[in-house]
Amino acid sequence: MTEVIELPVIQQDSCCAPVASAPITLEQAATTAGLFKALGDPTRVLLISIVAAAEGQEACVCDLTEPTGLSQPTVSHHLKILTEAGFLSRTRRGSWAYYALVPGSLDRLATVLAE
Amino acid sequence: MTEVIELPVIQQDSCCAPVASAPITLEQAATTAGLFKALGDPTRVLLISIVAAAEGQEACVCDLTEPTGLSQPTVSHHLKILTEAGFLSRTRRGSWAYYALVPGSLDRLATVLAE
Repeated sequence: MTEVIELPVIQQDSCCAPVASAPITLEQAATTAGLFKALGDPTRVLLISIVAAAEGQEACVCDLTEPTGLSQPTVSHHLKILTEAGFLSRTRRGSWAYYALVPGSLDRLATVLAE
Repeated sequence: MTEVIELPVIQQDSCCAPVASAPITLEQAATTAGLFKALGDPTRVLLISIVAAAEGQEACVCDLTEPTGLSQPTVSHHLKILTEAGFLSRTRRGSWAYYALVPGSLDRLATVLAE
Protein backbone atom coordinates (compact mmCIF):
# COMPACT_ATOMS: atom_id res chain seq x y z
CA MET A 1 0.00 0.00 0.00
CA THR A 2 1.34 3.34 -0.96
CA GLU A 3 0.93 6.17 1.44
CA VAL A 4 -0.10 9.31 -0.28
CA ILE A 5 1.24 12.41 1.31
CA GLU A 6 -0.52 15.51 0.22
CA LEU A 7 1.93 18.31 -0.08
CA PRO A 8 0.70 21.84 0.13
CA VAL A 9 0.30 23.29 -3.30
CA ILE A 10 2.12 26.54 -3.79
CA GLN A 11 -0.41 28.32 -5.89
CA GLN A 12 0.74 30.78 -8.42
CA ASP A 13 -0.96 33.93 -7.35
CA SER A 14 -2.40 35.35 -10.50
CA CYS A 15 -2.53 38.81 -8.99
CA CYS A 16 1.21 38.88 -8.49
CA ALA A 17 2.26 38.38 -12.08
CA PRO A 18 4.52 41.32 -12.82
CA VAL A 19 2.92 43.66 -15.32
CA ALA A 20 6.10 44.94 -16.87
CA SER A 21 8.40 41.98 -17.50
CA ALA A 22 6.15 39.61 -19.44
CA PRO A 23 2.76 39.73 -21.09
CA ILE A 24 0.15 38.47 -18.68
CA THR A 25 -3.04 36.54 -19.32
CA LEU A 26 -6.40 38.27 -19.51
CA GLU A 27 -7.39 36.52 -16.28
CA GLN A 28 -4.31 37.86 -14.49
CA ALA A 29 -4.98 41.29 -16.00
CA ALA A 30 -8.54 41.21 -14.63
CA THR A 31 -7.37 40.32 -11.12
CA THR A 32 -4.69 43.02 -11.16
CA ALA A 33 -7.09 45.60 -12.60
CA GLY A 34 -9.55 44.84 -9.79
CA LEU A 35 -6.90 45.79 -7.22
CA PHE A 36 -6.05 49.02 -9.05
CA LYS A 37 -9.74 49.83 -9.36
CA ALA A 38 -10.15 49.54 -5.58
CA LEU A 39 -7.45 52.23 -5.25
CA GLY A 40 -8.78 54.31 -8.14
CA ASP A 41 -10.78 56.66 -5.96
CA PRO A 42 -9.49 59.71 -4.01
CA THR A 43 -11.44 58.86 -0.84
CA ARG A 44 -10.11 55.32 -0.79
CA VAL A 45 -6.52 56.46 -1.35
CA LEU A 46 -6.98 58.96 1.49
CA LEU A 47 -8.51 56.33 3.81
CA ILE A 48 -5.79 53.74 3.19
CA SER A 49 -3.17 56.44 3.69
CA ILE A 50 -4.64 57.45 7.06
CA VAL A 51 -4.90 53.83 8.22
CA ALA A 52 -1.37 53.02 7.02
CA ALA A 53 0.08 56.01 8.85
CA ALA A 54 -1.84 55.37 12.09
CA GLU A 55 -0.25 53.75 15.14
CA GLY A 56 -0.11 50.02 14.53
CA GLN A 57 -1.44 50.71 11.03
CA GLU A 58 -4.95 50.48 12.47
CA ALA A 59 -7.70 53.08 12.84
CA CYS A 60 -11.21 53.24 14.27
CA VAL A 61 -13.94 53.98 11.75
CA CYS A 62 -14.91 56.79 14.14
CA ASP A 63 -11.63 58.54 13.28
CA LEU A 64 -11.95 58.05 9.53
CA THR A 65 -15.12 60.01 8.85
CA GLU A 66 -13.98 63.54 9.72
CA PRO A 67 -10.82 63.69 7.51
CA THR A 68 -12.84 62.72 4.45
CA GLY A 69 -15.69 65.16 5.03
CA LEU A 70 -18.13 62.43 4.03
CA SER A 71 -20.96 60.67 5.87
CA GLN A 72 -20.20 57.54 7.85
CA PRO A 73 -22.23 55.24 5.55
CA THR A 74 -20.24 56.55 2.56
CA VAL A 75 -16.94 56.05 4.37
CA SER A 76 -18.03 52.54 5.40
CA HIS A 77 -18.85 51.78 1.76
CA HIS A 78 -15.33 52.77 0.69
CA LEU A 79 -13.77 50.82 3.58
CA LYS A 80 -15.75 47.75 2.51
CA ILE A 81 -14.30 47.96 -1.01
CA LEU A 82 -10.77 48.25 0.40
CA THR A 83 -11.44 45.30 2.71
CA GLU A 84 -12.86 43.12 -0.05
CA ALA A 85 -9.84 43.93 -2.22
CA GLY A 86 -7.59 42.65 0.57
CA PHE A 87 -5.94 45.94 1.54
CA LEU A 88 -7.68 46.34 4.90
CA SER A 89 -8.91 43.94 7.55
CA ARG A 90 -11.86 44.71 9.82
CA THR A 91 -12.23 43.94 13.51
CA ARG A 92 -15.14 44.89 15.73
CA ARG A 93 -14.24 45.98 19.28
CA GLY A 94 -17.07 47.29 21.43
CA SER A 95 -19.27 49.63 19.42
CA TRP A 96 -16.71 50.40 16.76
CA ALA A 97 -15.13 48.73 13.78
CA TYR A 98 -11.37 49.02 13.43
CA TYR A 99 -9.60 48.82 10.12
CA ALA A 100 -5.99 47.67 9.81
CA LEU A 101 -3.69 47.65 6.81
CA VAL A 102 -3.13 44.06 5.68
CA PRO A 103 0.65 43.69 5.98
CA GLY A 104 2.34 43.40 2.60
CA SER A 105 -0.80 44.14 0.58
CA LEU A 106 0.51 47.41 -0.85
CA ASP A 107 4.01 46.03 -1.33
CA ARG A 108 2.49 43.11 -3.21
CA LEU A 109 0.82 45.44 -5.66
CA ALA A 110 4.03 47.49 -5.93
CA THR A 111 5.84 44.32 -7.00
CA VAL A 112 3.35 43.85 -9.82
CA LEU A 113 4.24 47.31 -11.08
CA ALA A 114 8.03 47.25 -10.77
CA GLU A 115 9.68 47.53 -14.17
CA MET B 1 22.31 96.28 -9.08
CA THR B 2 21.62 92.85 -7.80
CA GLU B 3 21.72 90.04 -10.26
CA VAL B 4 18.87 87.66 -9.75
CA ILE B 5 19.71 84.10 -10.59
CA GLU B 6 16.70 81.95 -11.04
CA LEU B 7 17.36 78.53 -9.65
CA PRO B 8 15.35 75.63 -10.94
CA VAL B 9 12.57 74.84 -8.56
CA ILE B 10 12.45 71.24 -7.50
CA GLN B 11 8.76 70.72 -7.47
CA GLN B 12 7.31 68.32 -5.02
CA ASP B 13 5.47 65.89 -7.18
CA SER B 14 2.11 65.46 -5.53
CA CYS B 15 1.58 62.12 -7.23
CA CYS B 16 4.65 60.64 -5.60
CA ALA B 17 3.66 61.12 -1.99
CA PRO B 18 3.93 57.66 -0.46
CA VAL B 19 0.53 56.33 0.47
CA ALA B 20 1.64 54.20 3.38
CA SER B 21 4.07 56.21 5.48
CA ALA B 22 2.14 59.42 6.10
CA PRO B 23 -1.38 60.70 5.59
CA ILE B 24 -1.58 62.51 2.30
CA THR B 25 -3.66 65.50 1.28
CA LEU B 26 -6.94 65.10 -0.58
CA GLU B 27 -5.30 66.71 -3.62
CA GLN B 28 -2.46 64.17 -3.56
CA ALA B 29 -4.99 61.39 -3.05
CA ALA B 30 -6.93 62.56 -6.12
CA THR B 31 -3.80 62.58 -8.30
CA THR B 32 -2.73 59.15 -7.09
CA ALA B 33 -6.25 57.75 -7.48
CA GLY B 34 -6.31 59.01 -11.08
CA LEU B 35 -3.23 56.92 -11.86
CA PHE B 36 -4.73 53.82 -10.24
CA LYS B 37 -7.98 54.39 -12.08
CA ALA B 38 -6.12 54.39 -15.41
CA LEU B 39 -4.82 50.92 -14.50
CA GLY B 40 -8.15 49.75 -13.07
CA ASP B 41 -9.30 48.03 -16.23
CA PRO B 42 -8.33 44.53 -17.47
CA THR B 43 -7.78 45.65 -21.07
CA ARG B 44 -5.49 48.48 -19.99
CA VAL B 45 -3.46 46.22 -17.68
CA LEU B 46 -3.14 43.76 -20.57
CA LEU B 47 -2.09 46.48 -23.03
CA ILE B 48 0.53 48.00 -20.75
CA SER B 49 1.85 44.52 -20.02
CA ILE B 50 2.24 43.74 -23.73
CA VAL B 51 3.95 47.06 -24.43
CA ALA B 52 6.24 46.71 -21.41
CA ALA B 53 7.31 43.20 -22.46
CA ALA B 54 7.86 44.13 -26.12
CA GLU B 55 11.29 44.75 -27.60
CA GLY B 56 12.39 48.23 -26.60
CA GLN B 57 9.20 48.45 -24.51
CA GLU B 58 7.42 49.73 -27.61
CA ALA B 59 4.63 48.24 -29.72
CA CYS B 60 2.70 49.19 -32.85
CA VAL B 61 -1.01 49.71 -32.34
CA CYS B 62 -1.41 47.19 -35.17
CA ASP B 63 -0.01 44.50 -32.85
CA LEU B 64 -2.16 45.46 -29.87
CA THR B 65 -5.62 44.81 -31.26
CA GLU B 66 -5.51 41.04 -31.75
CA PRO B 67 -4.39 40.05 -28.20
CA THR B 68 -7.27 41.99 -26.66
CA GLY B 69 -9.95 40.66 -29.01
CA LEU B 70 -11.40 44.17 -29.20
CA SER B 71 -11.92 46.60 -32.08
CA GLN B 72 -9.14 49.03 -32.96
CA PRO B 73 -11.15 52.11 -31.91
CA THR B 74 -11.74 50.53 -28.48
CA VAL B 75 -8.07 49.63 -28.12
CA SER B 76 -7.10 53.17 -29.17
CA HIS B 77 -9.45 54.56 -26.52
CA HIS B 78 -7.72 52.53 -23.80
CA LEU B 79 -4.27 53.48 -25.14
CA LYS B 80 -5.28 57.14 -24.99
CA ILE B 81 -6.20 56.81 -21.30
CA LEU B 82 -2.85 55.16 -20.55
CA THR B 83 -1.04 57.89 -22.52
CA GLU B 84 -2.88 60.72 -20.77
CA ALA B 85 -2.06 59.15 -17.39
CA GLY B 86 1.63 59.23 -18.34
CA PHE B 87 2.26 55.50 -18.59
CA LEU B 88 2.65 55.36 -22.38
CA SER B 89 4.01 57.73 -24.99
CA ARG B 90 2.74 57.80 -28.57
CA THR B 91 4.77 58.25 -31.75
CA ARG B 92 3.44 58.14 -35.29
CA ARG B 93 5.69 56.42 -37.86
CA GLY B 94 4.27 55.97 -41.35
CA SER B 95 0.68 54.78 -41.15
CA TRP B 96 0.90 53.47 -37.61
CA ALA B 97 1.03 54.79 -34.09
CA TYR B 98 3.59 53.26 -31.77
CA TYR B 99 3.18 53.17 -28.02
CA ALA B 100 6.15 53.01 -25.66
CA LEU B 101 6.26 52.55 -21.92
CA VAL B 102 7.34 55.81 -20.27
CA PRO B 103 10.49 54.79 -18.40
CA GLY B 104 10.01 54.84 -14.65
CA SER B 105 6.26 55.47 -14.78
CA LEU B 106 5.31 52.12 -13.24
CA ASP B 107 8.19 52.23 -10.76
CA ARG B 108 7.03 55.68 -9.72
CA LEU B 109 3.60 54.36 -8.84
CA ALA B 110 5.15 51.36 -7.11
CA THR B 111 7.07 53.81 -4.87
CA VAL B 112 3.79 55.41 -3.84
CA LEU B 113 2.56 52.02 -2.67
CA ALA B 114 5.63 50.72 -0.87
CA GLU B 115 4.94 50.23 2.84
